[in-house]
Amino acid sequence: MTNPTAAMLVIGDEILSGRTRDANMHFLAGELTKHGVDLREVRIVADDREMIIAAVQALSGTYDTVFTSGGIGPTHDDITADCIAAAFGRSIDVRSDARALLQAHYDNSGQELNEARLRMARIPDGAALIDNPVSVAPGFTVENVHVMAGVPSVFQAMVASVLPTLTGGAPLLSQSLRIMKGEGDIAGPLGALAADFSDLSIGSYPFQKDGVFGANIVIRGTDGARVDAAMTRLAEMFG
Amino acid sequence: MTNPTAAMLVIGDEILSGRTRDANMHFLAGELTKHGVDLREVRIVADDREMIIAAVQALSGTYDTVFTSGGIGPTHDDITADCIAAAFGRSIDVRSDARALLQAHYDNSGQELNEARLRMARIPDGAALIDNPVSVAPGFTVENVHVMAGVPSVFQAMVASVLPTLTGGAPLLSQSLRIMKGEGDIAGPLGALAADFSDLSIGSYPFQKDGVFGANIVIRGTDGARVDAAMTRLAEMFG
Repeated sequence: MTNPTAAMLVIGDEILSGRTRDANMHFLAGELTKHGVDLREVRIVADDREMIIAAVQALSGTYDTVFTSGGIGPTHDDITADCIAAAFGRSIDVRSDARALLQAHYDNSGQELNEARLRMARIPDGAALIDNPVSVAPGFTVENVHVMAGVPSVFQAMVASVLPTLTGGAPLLSQSLRIMKGEGDIAGPLGALAADFSDLSIGSYPFQKDGVFGANIVIRGTDGARVDAAMTRLAEMFG
Repeated sequence: MTNPTAAMLVIGDEILSGRTRDANMHFLAGELTKHGVDLREVRIVADDREMIIAAVQALSGTYDTVFTSGGIGPTHDDITADCIAAAFGRSIDVRSDARALLQAHYDNSGQELNEARLRMARIPDGAALIDNPVSVAPGFTVENVHVMAGVPSVFQAMVASVLPTLTGGAPLLSQSLRIMKGEGDIAGPLGALAADFSDLSIGSYPFQKDGVFGANIVIRGTDGARVDAAMTRLAEMFG
């Protein structure tokens, strides 16, 4: 496959402690698949400076595009922006364009742009701002890394801002068949099918429901005719 | 904190394509927190041999314990066991104890232990088996890596088998306060509190509901008296 590749970095103690169940990864995965971008790896790390910097550098160097979520708010545990700047050796300070966005927003709502809120205008040198139609405080893009908020409504709005700027590949087409047999009963013929259609991705996802084992077989590829052909063979085998 | 550390590796194309929303990570995170083990990092990778091997080696060398989920079934895309063996330079083959478990199970249920099912008895040399009370096919432990199934009911049963064998630390205690103010209004005093209680972890998790911004403040630590003291101060500030 020649689709562009992507990775995601989720930043937040609350996910790793089990307090919060992450929702952003699943959302982004679906959006990227529709857009023809292959999400290849996700990492979830704590609010830890060294870990964030190391993960950003590793992912940015390996994949075409990286998305981060979390850690860009006004509180003491929001350290993502400074870590991104450090990861790319850039300086970071309150930037006038980001400050102006916040100033207008808080003037409108009769709130004070205090020192804490001003932290959300700290933008690494040379970064492009990402529009935040939900709560104004912007995300930003440095090189191939898009830095976005962790609050799901804001994250989703920022993804919508960024996606049209990405070059997508051919959207991945998929068809699936639910087979009410244990994987052990279908693995042999399925492996032969996968060998005959090595240009496609054929996955088997087992489940157990009311004590009965079954599997969803998902056939994915960018060539619709090939996906159809494999699906026809699969249905003949197990239909 | 001196609690033992852990990482998790989720293996599966279906998570990265957005087709399936992972449930195992959130479950494991909660169990480890109760058990006094700090989950420090999670990685999600595709069914890709080189990526699995690299991730297992990196996580195994960095953390006290590693948990994997996914890729140990009977189908062609189940490559985890072979990757684990390769990551530790061990040989892998059908092992008699694992084979005997499967043979008894399929004899009982009148099914055939065919070539595909026999793949689930492939165990790296020197590994200890992990009990699977749900569907028999075992997980296994190699060095500090516990290799478990991706089907949530089986994953959860295997976690229950493994957890009692781990040395836990002091369980992390947490208290939280829901504050109906934007983070920008509370960040200043909250940062001062975090500085005064630097032995605790004080996190701010913003939310937006019906257009109103608020934050859950979570104070975590292993010393209950200190958590209480910080919580009292927090309530005085924003109660």
